[in-house]
Amino acid sequence: MSADPARPTEPDPGARFDDEIREQPAALLRLLDHADDYETAARVLTSRAPAVVRLVGHGSSDNAASYGVYAFGLLSGRTALRDSISLSVYYGADVDLADSTVVALSQSGRTPDVVQYVERARARGALTIGVTNEPGSPLAGTAEIVLPLAAGPELAVAATKTYVNQLGALALLAGHAAGRGREIVDGLRATAGLLADAIEPVALSAREPAVAFAYVGRMLVIGRGLEFATARETALKLTETCRVAAEPLTATDLSHGPIAALDRLFPVWTIASPDPTLPAVVEAADRASTAGATLLATGAAADAIAAASYRLPVPAAPLTVLSPFLSVLPGQLFAAALARAKGLDPDRPAGLTKVTLAQ
Amino acid sequence: MSADPARPTEPDPGARFDDEIREQPAALLRLLDHADDYETAARVLTSRAPAVVRLVGHGSSDNAASYGVYAFGLLSGRTALRDSISLSVYYGADVDLADSTVVALSQSGRTPDVVQYVERARARGALTIGVTNEPGSPLAGTAEIVLPLAAGPELAVAATKTYVNQLGALALLAGHAAGRGREIVDGLRATAGLLADAIEPVALSAREPAVAFAYVGRMLVIGRGLEFATARETALKLTETCRVAAEPLTATDLSHGPIAALDRLFPVWTIASPDPTLPAVVEAADRASTAGATLLATGAAADAIAAASYRLPVPAAPLTVLSPFLSVLPGQLFAAALARAKGLDPDRPAGLTKVTLAQ
Repeated sequence: MSADPARPTEPDPGARFDDEIREQPAALLRLLDHADDYETAARVLTSRAPAVVRLVGHGSSDNAASYGVYAFGLLSGRTALRDSISLSVYYGADVDLADSTVVALSQSGRTPDVVQYVERARARGALTIGVTNEPGSPLAGTAEIVLPLAAGPELAVAATKTYVNQLGALALLAGHAAGRGREIVDGLRATAGLLADAIEPVALSAREPAVAFAYVGRMLVIGRGLEFATARETALKLTETCRVAAEPLTATDLSHGPIAALDRLFPVWTIASPDPTLPAVVEAADRASTAGATLLATGAAADAIAAASYRLPVPAAPLTVLSPFLSVLPGQLFAAALARAKGLDPDRPAGLTKVTLAQ
Repeated sequence: MSADPARPTEPDPGARFDDEIREQPAALLRLLDHADDYETAARVLTSRAPAVVRLVGHGSSDNAASYGVYAFGLLSGRTALRDSISLSVYYGADVDLADSTVVALSQSGRTPDVVQYVERARARGALTIGVTNEPGSPLAGTAEIVLPLAAGPELAVAATKTYVNQLGALALLAGHAAGRGREIVDGLRATAGLLADAIEPVALSAREPAVAFAYVGRMLVIGRGLEFATARETALKLTETCRVAAEPLTATDLSHGPIAALDRLFPVWTIASPDPTLPAVVEAADRASTAGATLLATGAAADAIAAASYRLPVPAAPLTVLSPFLSVLPGQLFAAALARAKGLDPDRPAGLTKVTLAQ
């Protein structure tokens, strides 16, 4: 049997990862087709369980949850928190959940302790919302309300379009809960367009630092506020696809210890967005530069990082709260380029499988 | 002028750090002298602002806050969260705080955005409690209730006794809020004794891995539940005193990406306590071992980590919720020994000062 040249059995290293990064604008638009479902869920949230929004997930889903804290806080003045799964699932803590809404994030809908958390929270009276790509999954069977992530089949091991659609899901829920659904839907539509336009320029600007960083083994990734989610997600991409020990930190936490470890071979990735946290990020970058670290600046305010050796700017988002949709792109494309420069295949990270069933 | 031999102008490298690690049992007993103050504050908390406990701090104080989430959840069934400082201080988010208690942690009481956070939270109706070593500090002047940390002057740059007393402060508050103050006070007193007895054996067992790890540049630190605070604090000590890129992860998050980066030169520090999260930690350790990582096991259940190359066990705490007081000790003493093995002075980390005024 001869191989079908149209369907290679061994795709290019990183081809899936690349494809899904490029598919993100389309995936985000697909999510917007379900904006009405999000509006309905937000109405139940505000009427029945408005006190606290509890976000749960692991890996990229937990990074998206970091964004959710800000989306709910900024758009609807609600307290959202990344809840402890172990407090409920392992310790069986007796926490009152009657006025709480749970938003559980799992691409596959099969993360065991997320499903268990939702089960217990529902039994204790919480409103439970599952956001997943898989309508037939255990999470979908357990949550009271199931919302489609609509990212389409994710074949790469490292999440990209799933992450951006999880941000979208949280922005839609928080926006609708604040009576600002229309503004968010319009903003997300515009953001999808900006994202599409940014992909090629950012991919191009990622090439030079990827070659320069081919022997880097450790990095810090600095963001604050809304962009702390981006810092976490960027660090995770670098760790899982490039085997870099990359740690996410808030701009302020850098000065509370980790700055002591920096030197020329320990670069710092900074995420600079034009929002009220920018001065703190600029100050942290200055300190890192003084400590001898090589700086890489990303975000729509990358130009504000004066000492940066490399810049991967992105366009400004139409709303401050939507900046993270654009500022995650440089981390994804740089990870793809760095993996290639290191001779690694981001589609086959060592020891990882697509669905994680770890306890 | 001859130098006074009794007062050397250049103390031994790490002498302050060592001294303060060893002073921890005495510092914890000093805190217990103020147990009545904590009982009074807990009474105000439960009567006036019981809905949500908002913990804020940076660096080690934020690590202690991670413990607070579990102390309040397990002991008093309350929702405690590490609140976003930037949401309030930078973005001015309009979050309702009327039923919230704020617990602000700052050794010096001078961390600028922590003080600003407390100022705003108090203006918005929250009950504000400041926990600090410095009764004359801006934090003490801003918070409605000031509780003494009673750790005594902290001269080392890297926090140790302050961290343990912050854990103590949170356990006392949560315990009294649950009507279990007496049990916690007795448990802490017993823990101080166990801690004192453990110091020399743990210091001895830290020597061999410290020499073996002298050229290690990156580590993961794995804990879960109550011990995630210990994982964060251990990673911070390793980063600031030993210039190791050490990242804290929950046992489960290891499998969601970072495991792909592990190899023989990327060791994993595991914190194994005899509590319901132990199976998840054992499973994560097995995966890390399969990925080729060298394992170092600590905690009262260190023996459960079968593949560990090194073990730094500690005695079991009298109550599950008090385990982190003992399991942080190996990280502190190992950091001291590793800094020495690397020729670094943990009392003079590059670029760090005792009080951090970074925004």
